[in-house]
Amino acid sequence: MARVVVDVMPKQEILDPQGQAVAGALPRLGFQGVTSIRQGKHFELEVDDSVDDATLGRIAETLLANPVIEDWAIRREQS
Amino acid sequence: MARVVVDVMPKQEILDPQGQAVAGALPRLGFQGVTSIRQGKHFELEVDDSVDDATLGRIAETLLANPVIEDWAIRREQS
Repeated sequence: MARVVVDVMPKQEILDPQGQAVAGALPRLGFQGVTSIRQGKHFELEVDDSVDDATLGRIAETLLANPVIEDWAIRREQS
Repeated sequence: MARVVVDVMPKQEILDPQGQAVAGALPRLGFQGVTSIRQGKHFELEVDDSVDDATLGRIAETLLANPVIEDWAIRREQS
């Protein structure tokens, strides 16, 4: 059993209204010094050891991310 | 300027319908061997070096996560 983390982020050239909303709220709440925020998705998967990296890539590409507008990063964590 | 990542996840005892929906779709798409998926949020912040860890904690607690139902992890990345 392995623990896998997939982070999905909007591509740099894609507008990120959620992140912009958070960034806009920070000064109103009194927080200074944050110049940029982008928001994406974070998935934590428990997978059998039989699941290889190619399969994880297909899972991320077909189900977790929209390849047209999002980038993703897959990493295995120590369990 | 530092790059900070905040991962926000539903607490273990909180239902995660998004993650369950993804987990339910995997076998239908032909992917076997994934036993659990939980979905959360992933934030990437660019902050001034003047922003300390305590401030980042308050930002995460007040704006990025709902402490009643979510846990969060903050880490600084090499820029």
